[in-house]
Amino acid sequence: MPTITGKQYIERIDKLKTEVWLDGERVIGNISEHPAFKGVMKSQAALYDLQHDDSLKEFMTYPSPSTGELVGMSYFQPKTKKDLVKRREMIQQWAKSTNGLMGRSPDYMNTTLMALASSSELLRGKKNCFPEHLLAFYEYAREHDLSMTHTFIDPQVNRTQFYFEKNSEPIVAKIVERNAEGIVVKGAKLLATQGGITDEILVLSAGGILDEESGFAFSIPSNSKGLKFICRESFVGGDSVFNYPLSSRFEEMDSIVVFDNVLVPWERVFYYDNSAVANSFQITSSFQAFALHQVVSRQIVKTEFILGIAESIINTINISEYKHVQEKVAEIIVGLETMKALVIKSEVEGKLDEWGVMRPDSITLLVGINIFPRIYPRFTEIIQLLGASGLMTVPTEHAFQSSIRKELDQYLQSRGENAEDRVKLFRLAWDLTMSPFGTRQTLYERFFFGDPIRLSSQLYQSYNKEPYVERVKGIVEAFSLK
Amino acid sequence: MPTITGKQYIERIDKLKTEVWLDGERVIGNISEHPAFKGVMKSQAALYDLQHDDSLKEFMTYPSPSTGELVGMSYFQPKTKKDLVKRREMIQQWAKSTNGLMGRSPDYMNTTLMALASSSELLRGKKNCFPEHLLAFYEYAREHDLSMTHTFIDPQVNRTQFYFEKNSEPIVAKIVERNAEGIVVKGAKLLATQGGITDEILVLSAGGILDEESGFAFSIPSNSKGLKFICRESFVGGDSVFNYPLSSRFEEMDSIVVFDNVLVPWERVFYYDNSAVANSFQITSSFQAFALHQVVSRQIVKTEFILGIAESIINTINISEYKHVQEKVAEIIVGLETMKALVIKSEVEGKLDEWGVMRPDSITLLVGINIFPRIYPRFTEIIQLLGASGLMTVPTEHAFQSSIRKELDQYLQSRGENAEDRVKLFRLAWDLTMSPFGTRQTLYERFFFGDPIRLSSQLYQSYNKEPYVERVKGIVEAFSLK
Amino acid sequence: MPTITGKQYIERIDKLKTEVWLDGERVIGNISEHPAFKGVMKSQAALYDLQHDDSLKEFMTYPSPSTGELVGMSYFQPKTKKDLVKRREMIQQWAKSTNGLMGRSPDYMNTTLMALASSSELLRGKKNCFPEHLLAFYEYAREHDLSMTHTFIDPQVNRTQFYFEKNSEPIVAKIVERNAEGIVVKGAKLLATQGGITDEILVLSAGGILDEESGFAFSIPSNSKGLKFICRESFVGGDSVFNYPLSSRFEEMDSIVVFDNVLVPWERVFYYDNSAVANSFQITSSFQAFALHQVVSRQIVKTEFILGIAESIINTINISEYKHVQEKVAEIIVGLETMKALVIKSEVEGKLDEWGVMRPDSITLLVGINIFPRIYPRFTEIIQLLGASGLMTVPTEHAFQSSIRKELDQYLQSRGENAEDRVKLFRLAWDLTMSPFGTRQTLYERFFFGDPIRLSSQLYQSYNKEPYVERVKGIVEAFSLK
Amino acid sequence: MPTITGKQYIERIDKLKTEVWLDGERVIGNISEHPAFKGVMKSQAALYDLQHDDSLKEFMTYPSPSTGELVGMSYFQPKTKKDLVKRREMIQQWAKSTNGLMGRSPDYMNTTLMALASSSELLRGKKNCFPEHLLAFYEYAREHDLSMTHTFIDPQVNRTQFYFEKNSEPIVAKIVERNAEGIVVKGAKLLATQGGITDEILVLSAGGILDEESGFAFSIPSNSKGLKFICRESFVGGDSVFNYPLSSRFEEMDSIVVFDNVLVPWERVFYYDNSAVANSFQITSSFQAFALHQVVSRQIVKTEFILGIAESIINTINISEYKHVQEKVAEIIVGLETMKALVIKSEVEGKLDEWGVMRPDSITLLVGINIFPRIYPRFTEIIQLLGASGLMTVPTEHAFQSSIRKELDQYLQSRGENAEDRVKLFRLAWDLTMSPFGTRQTLYERFFFGDPIRLSSQLYQSYNKEPYVERVKGIVEAFSLK
Repeated sequence: MPTITGKQYIERIDKLKTEVWLDGERVIGNISEHPAFKGVMKSQAALYDLQHDDSLKEFMTYPSPSTGELVGMSYFQPKTKKDLVKRREMIQQWAKSTNGLMGRSPDYMNTTLMALASSSELLRGKKNCFPEHLLAFYEYAREHDLSMTHTFIDPQVNRTQFYFEKNSEPIVAKIVERNAEGIVVKGAKLLATQGGITDEILVLSAGGILDEESGFAFSIPSNSKGLKFICRESFVGGDSVFNYPLSSRFEEMDSIVVFDNVLVPWERVFYYDNSAVANSFQITSSFQAFALHQVVSRQIVKTEFILGIAESIINTINISEYKHVQEKVAEIIVGLETMKALVIKSEVEGKLDEWGVMRPDSITLLVGINIFPRIYPRFTEIIQLLGASGLMTVPTEHAFQSSIRKELDQYLQSRGENAEDRVKLFRLAWDLTMSPFGTRQTLYERFFFGDPIRLSSQLYQSYNKEPYVERVKGIVEAFSLK
Repeated sequence: MPTITGKQYIERIDKLKTEVWLDGERVIGNISEHPAFKGVMKSQAALYDLQHDDSLKEFMTYPSPSTGELVGMSYFQPKTKKDLVKRREMIQQWAKSTNGLMGRSPDYMNTTLMALASSSELLRGKKNCFPEHLLAFYEYAREHDLSMTHTFIDPQVNRTQFYFEKNSEPIVAKIVERNAEGIVVKGAKLLATQGGITDEILVLSAGGILDEESGFAFSIPSNSKGLKFICRESFVGGDSVFNYPLSSRFEEMDSIVVFDNVLVPWERVFYYDNSAVANSFQITSSFQAFALHQVVSRQIVKTEFILGIAESIINTINISEYKHVQEKVAEIIVGLETMKALVIKSEVEGKLDEWGVMRPDSITLLVGINIFPRIYPRFTEIIQLLGASGLMTVPTEHAFQSSIRKELDQYLQSRGENAEDRVKLFRLAWDLTMSPFGTRQTLYERFFFGDPIRLSSQLYQSYNKEPYVERVKGIVEAFSLK
Repeated sequence: MPTITGKQYIERIDKLKTEVWLDGERVIGNISEHPAFKGVMKSQAALYDLQHDDSLKEFMTYPSPSTGELVGMSYFQPKTKKDLVKRREMIQQWAKSTNGLMGRSPDYMNTTLMALASSSELLRGKKNCFPEHLLAFYEYAREHDLSMTHTFIDPQVNRTQFYFEKNSEPIVAKIVERNAEGIVVKGAKLLATQGGITDEILVLSAGGILDEESGFAFSIPSNSKGLKFICRESFVGGDSVFNYPLSSRFEEMDSIVVFDNVLVPWERVFYYDNSAVANSFQITSSFQAFALHQVVSRQIVKTEFILGIAESIINTINISEYKHVQEKVAEIIVGLETMKALVIKSEVEGKLDEWGVMRPDSITLLVGINIFPRIYPRFTEIIQLLGASGLMTVPTEHAFQSSIRKELDQYLQSRGENAEDRVKLFRLAWDLTMSPFGTRQTLYERFFFGDPIRLSSQLYQSYNKEPYVERVKGIVEAFSLK
Repeated sequence: MPTITGKQYIERIDKLKTEVWLDGERVIGNISEHPAFKGVMKSQAALYDLQHDDSLKEFMTYPSPSTGELVGMSYFQPKTKKDLVKRREMIQQWAKSTNGLMGRSPDYMNTTLMALASSSELLRGKKNCFPEHLLAFYEYAREHDLSMTHTFIDPQVNRTQFYFEKNSEPIVAKIVERNAEGIVVKGAKLLATQGGITDEILVLSAGGILDEESGFAFSIPSNSKGLKFICRESFVGGDSVFNYPLSSRFEEMDSIVVFDNVLVPWERVFYYDNSAVANSFQITSSFQAFALHQVVSRQIVKTEFILGIAESIINTINISEYKHVQEKVAEIIVGLETMKALVIKSEVEGKLDEWGVMRPDSITLLVGINIFPRIYPRFTEIIQLLGASGLMTVPTEHAFQSSIRKELDQYLQSRGENAEDRVKLFRLAWDLTMSPFGTRQTLYERFFFGDPIRLSSQLYQSYNKEPYVERVKGIVEAFSLK
C-alpha cells in the first residue's frame, strides 16, 4: 500500500472511534466532523494529498525498499548529505501548506520513528529490548503511511528536584503487570498533541528516570482498550475563516493521555523495565539529530510567515521609514537567516553513523532549538508593536456583511489596503499572536524541546569546549616565572 | 444628587439606548443584559456600590463643595500632599476590586475631567475657548457621578511622518459646520474603551495637529444623534467564571467611534478651531500629572496580581527552590517596588500649581509610564515560563462536572492543590496572559499612553538634564592647556 | 577631638607605616606621596575638609552626644524620617565631590559601624559576644573621625556549592589561637578597597559559614603586626588630569589582606567562635538598611554623572535629534529616577527599630541594589555607543602642547566644543567607561553587594508575597464545583 | 617577488620613515623598535612568516597568475565554492595566531583590494574612473605582498542628519587641486588602524556623499609628502607578557590621517570627482561580500577565544555546576555556532558574478555583522560576571618575583591552578575585557562595519521580503466577502 490520500486518512481515523473527551463529553460519531477537529483534520488530509500531487511526487515520496511502491519521503533513511537536503525540502514543502503552524504534521512523527528504527541496533542484546519490534513497526508504519502522535512528559505534580512519586495509585503512567500477552500500563502521560486524530500513539519514558519500571517504549493504536484522551478546551475560534483564519484550520489540540490498565501486546513493546536504555536511547540514537532537523526546518517556514506578516502590516499602514520599525524587522530577518544557516551547517557537517545513516550535526541543531524558544515569542511581540491599535479594531465577518459595512469601508481603509483586506490581515496577525490558538503556539515553541534552562544546560554539557580551553592553556603556560 | 449606586448606573445606561454595533448587529434591549457587556457592567456597578460601603465611604467620597453631599473622591481636587495620598488610596481601593484589570474604571475619566477643569484658566481669553463650559461640565459630572469614556486617537490609515489627509469625505473626525446651536462633527475616532456603556464621551484632538479645524474638545452623551460605536469582536469567553474568570467579568470592549454629522451644542464645546490650544492644553494642564497618577496607582495593583499568580503557581508545583525561578519572581518584585516608589516620589515631590492644586510630579510618573509597557509584557511571559505545560492542561468546568472528573482529580492534582483548584489557578493565569482578553490587556498596557518610542522621546525632551551637563562642564573646563 | 581635616587624615595615615605591597615592592616613606595613592588620598582629604566648610557644617556634622563637639554626620544615629533625609543629604554632598566614584568614601564605613553599633544589643548575652566592645569602638571612631575599610570575602579558591577548605595551612583567615591578650588570626581575606590608606580595618566573617571558628568580627589598626596589604596593579593612568581625569584622583586600590598570625586584642573583638551570630548579625542588625541607604544614595550621584556625560557628548556632536539616541538617554533617566524614588520610598517607609533607631526600609533598598548592577554596566555601554569613534580619537595632553596642536585644533573641533574641550570630554568618558579605572568601577558596581544571582534570590526570599498569594487564593476558592 | 617574510615587512616599514605623531612627539628612528609599535609589528611579522611555513604553504599561498611564484592566498580570486572554503581556512589560520585580535591583519586589506579589483569593470567608461589603475595596483600589491591600511570615515564634527561642512579651511579631506601630475588632497580622515606601520594607505570616500568633489578613491605610500598620522594614546600596557599578554602583542593603534596638500599621482587614482560611483561602488562591487567573509571568519576565531577563556575560568574556580553559569557559556556557544553557520551558508549560497568571481552570499554575512556587535560586548560582560573578584586580585609579574610570592602562592591558588597560572589566566581575561586594549577591542567590534542602527536599516532595506509578503497576500486575498 502506497502513501495514503487525505480521504483515506480521514476514513481511517473516523473508523477508530477512539475515546476522546472534550468539555466533559465523549466525542461520538465521526471525529472528522466535530467542530474541534474538522479543521485540523482537513488540513492534515491536504498534507497527505500533496504526496499524490504529480508535480511534488518527486519531493514527497520515494520507492519503498520492500515493495518499490511510493512511500512518504518523511520515512526516508538518508545515506548522503544530498539526502539530508531532500528531506529538508520535503519537510518545508509540507510546512509551507500550514506556514509551519502544525507542529505535528505527519513528517514529525514519521521522522522520529525512522530515526529510532535506524538506531535499533543500540537495543540489540540488551535486557528487555526488542529491536526487531521497532524495525517491524517502522516498516509497517511506512508501508501503511500511519499517522502517529507521541507522549512522554509526566504529569506536572511536583517539580522539585528530588521528587519521587509515592502514591499507591499511580499518577505517572507505569507498568503494573507483565503477562503472556504483553505489558499492562496504568497512569497518565501529559500532552499528546493531535491525540485522538492519529492512527497510533508512541509512548516513551521521559528522560532522567531512576526506577527500572519506568523505562519503556511502545506504540499502540489510538483506540486501544482503556486508552483515553482528555482534551483541553478547544481553541478553534469558529468556522469563519475570515474571523479565525488560523484556528479554524490548524488547531491541533492537546490532550492528557490516560492509561486505564492498557494492554500493550509484546510485538509493540520496543523495550521495558530498563531505565539505562530508556535514559540513553533518545540521546545515542539518531532521534535528536533527525527530530531537530525536522523541527528547525519547520520553524524556518514559520519565521518566514512572521516576516511576511510584519512586512505586510508595515506596508499597509506605511511605516517602513522609521528606524525603529526597520530595526524590529531586521531582528526577524536575523532570526530567520540564523535558523536557515544552522540547518545548512547541520547538513554540511552531517556524518555517517555506524549503521550507514547520514545524521545531520546534532549540536548545531541543538543550537537552533536553544534560539527559537527565545526569538519566536519576541517576534510575536514585534507583530503587536507594529500592529498597535490595528489589532484592537478587528470587527468580524458579520460586521462586514451588515449595514455597517460602509462605515467600516470608510474608516478602516488604509494606505495599502481596502478595509476588508486590512481587517483580514490584522485578524491573521491577531490569530497568530493574540488568540488562544496563537498564544498556545507561542507556548508550544517556548517548550517544544523542553525547558529553555534545561536546553542551555544540555548545550553546555554536550559541547566540546576542550580545543578552546587548550588554546588558552597554551597561552597561559607559554612562559613561567619560576 | 450624591454618588450613584451600581443599580443606578445600570439603569441610566440601559435607558440611553446608545447606538452600539457588535458582530454586524445593533445592540437592542438592555445593554446590561447583552452577553458582551453584562459582565463588565456588573463589575462597574460593584465599583459604584463601593462608594456606599460604610467602611469605605471615608476613602471613596468627600463632601461636594457645592452641596455638601458626598461625591466621588475621584473628582476631588487635591490641595496638599496628603490629599494626593488620599486620592491614591481611593484609586487602589477600586483597583483591588478588579485587580487593576479595568483600565477605564470610573476614576480614570473622573480624574481626567477634574484635572482638565482644574486648569481651565489656561483657556481663559483664548480664541474659541470656553473655560466656563468645562468647569460647568466638571461640576455637573461630579454631582451626577457620570460615567464617561474618551477618544482622541485618529484612524490608523497612514502612519508616515508627514501624512496629511486629503480625502473629500473625512476619515478623521473633524468639524464640518459651525452654526447657531453648536458645531457639527463628521468622521471617526479610534478606540473608545467602554464605548457604549458610559453616560458620556469626551472627545479631544490627538496631539501634534497642524490645521486649525482639527483643534477641539467637547463632551456629549453617548446617545447623541448620529453617534455610533462599532465594536471589535467581544473577548468574553463565556459566562462560566470557572472557565473565564477574568473575561467573564472585566472585558471592557473597544470600539470605533463614528460621528455621522453629530451636533455638539455650544455649552458642551470646551474649545474648537484652535490648534495651538489643542496641542498645548494636555501638556500644560494638570492632565498628565493626574492621569498618570491614576494609571500608575492602578498598574501597581495589577502587578501585585501578577506577583500573586506567579507565586501561587510556584507553590502549586513546588518549584521555589530553583534560582532561575527565584530570579524571575525577583524581576516582578523589582517592577512592583519600582512602580510603588515612583508613585510615592511623585507625591513627595508634588507642587502646588498656580491655581492652588497640588500636582504630583509629572516627570516621575512619566518614568513610570515608560517602564510599565516594557515590564508588563515580560511579566506575562514569566507567568508562561513558570506555568509551562500546566497552561496546556486546562479542561473546562463541564469536564469537571462529567464522569471524567475522577481521572482529572487523579492526574491533575498537584503538590499544593487538588485538581480543581489547580485548574482554576491555571485558567486564571491563562485568562490573564493567553486568552484574547489577556492578550488585549497586554496590548492595552503596551500602548496605554502612546507608542513606547514616543514616550522615550517625550521623557528625554522634558527631563531637565542641564544640572548634570553643568557638572561635567565644570570638570572639563576646570583647567585649560592654553 | 572633632572632625578631622584632610591634613590630619594624611598625617595620621603616613605615620602608620602600614605594610603595603605593590608591584613586588613594599611601600616605604609617606604613602600619601606614592604615585598609586597620592591622588585618592588627596581626594579623601578634600572630603574631610568639607566637614570644616562653614557653608556645609550644618549638613556634614552634628554635636557629639558625649562631648558636644562637632562630629561627622556619617556617624549620626537617626531617630526620625527627617534624620534619614539629613543623612542622605550628607552622603550626596560627599558623593558630589567625587561624582560617586569613591565607593569607600568615609561615610560608607562610618555608616556601617554606626549601624552595627546601633544593633549591638543583639549580641547581648550571646556566647563569645562583646557588645560593649562594639559600642566603645563606635564611640572611639566617631570621636576621632577614624578612617576605616573592611573585608569579609574569602579567597576565591573553589566556588562549588559544598566546598569546605581542608588545607593544613589556612587559606581563608581563621582564628588559630585564643590567649590572654586576644585572638590570633592567620590566613587571608579578599579585597580591602582602600586597604592601607585607612586608620583601621574591620574584619567580618562572610555569610553562610558552617564552622564555629569562622564566626568572628573585630577591628584593628592597619599597622597591626603581621597584617599585610598586597595590592593589585595600580590603575592610576598617570598624574595628568587632562589624560586621566578620574584615575588620577579617585583610584581607591584593592588589596588582598594577609593575616600572618595577627593578634587581635580582646577589646577589639566584637564576637568570635560563634557561627550563629556571625551568620545572622549582618541580617538582623540595621547594617543592611543603613549600608544600602548610603550605597544607593551614592549610586544616584554616579548616575547623574553618567547622564551628564551622555548629554554632553550628544551636545558636542549634535545628535540629539535621533530617536535611538533619545531612547538611550531615556534609559539613563529611567534608571536615575528609579534609584531616586527607591531611596525616597525607603525613607517614607522607614520604621523605628526596638532600640529607637529609624531604619530606612531595607527591602526597598534591596530592590535598588538588585537594579544597579544591571543598569550601570548598560549605562557605560550607552556612553560607548554615543561616543563611538570619538572615544578612539583621544590624543594626550602632550600632543596638545606640541607643534601638532594646530592640526588637532582643526580636525578635532566639533559643533559644540573646541578641540581641546572636546578631547577632554571624551577622555573623561573614556576614563569612566574604558580605562582600567573605569572597568574596575563597573566590576565594582556589578558585585558591590554580592553576586547578582544571589541578590535576586535574597530579594525573592525576603519579600513578603503572602498578601498577593492570598488575593489569588480568594479568587480561586471563591466558588467550588463540588 | 613572492610573499615576504616578517623580516622583510619590518625592514620595509622601517625604511619608510613615515610621519607618525604620538603623545606630542614625532616617531624617529625605526618604528619597529618604538614601544608603542614593536609588539604589534612583531606579531604582524609572524603572520608573514607563516606564509613560509612549509606545512602551511598550501593553505597560505598560491601561484601568481602573472609569474607563477607563490603569492599570498589573501589575494586569491575565488572561482568556486571550494575556493571560498580555501580562503576561509587561510583567514582563520592567520586569525588563530592572534586569536582574532588583529582586526587589520594583512588578509583584511588584501581581501578588500582583491574584491575592488575584481569588480573594476564597474568603473569602465565612467567619468573620471580608471579601472586599469585599480587593476595595476592590485597586481602590484599582490606581487610585492604590500601591507596596507585604509581610511574612509570623516571627522566627527557634527553628526546631525543634514549637516554640510561649510568651513573655508577643509576639515573633511577633499580634493583641492587637479593638475598634470595628479590630484591634491587636503583635510583629514578618521581612524586608520595600523596607520604608520603599513606600506600603503587606501583612501576612500565615506558613503552617502552629496557633492561631486568628495567622490574619490586612491592609494598612496604611507610616507607620501604631507601625509601625517596622529595617534591616540598607546594602549600597550608594557613589555611584560605576564602583565599584558595581549596589549604587549596586538595593540594595532588608531590614528587620525592628515592630508597636508598631499599629491596623489594619476596612476594611483582609481576614481575622482564622481559622487555617483563613490556612493555605489562599495555596494555593487564584491567588496561587501569578501570583506564580510574575512571579518566574520576572523570573529569566529575571536569567539572561540572568548569561549576558551570563559571555560578556563570556570574550571579554575570550579563553578561549572551552576545553571546560571552554564546558561552564560551556552550563550557564547550559541553565538559561536551561529557565526560559523552563517559563514558556511554564505559559501554554500555563493554565486558567480558577471566576471566569473565566486562571491559568498552577502546578505547572509550582513546578518553576521548585525549580530556580532551585539554579542561580543555581551561576551566580555559574561567574562566579567564569571571572573568576579578574580579580576580584581591581579598582582603583577614583579610581585611574583618578589619576597611576597609565598603569600601569593598560598592565597591565590585555586582548585584548578597554582597561583601563578591562575593570575596569568585572570590577567589574560582582564586584558581582553577590561584593559584599555580590551575595551578598545570591544568598541572596535561594536562599530566595525558602522553604527549598529545603520546596519539594521541596511539589512532591512537590502533583504528580499517579497516572497513572504506574497505568501501572506495569498492568504488574505484567498476569499472575499463582496
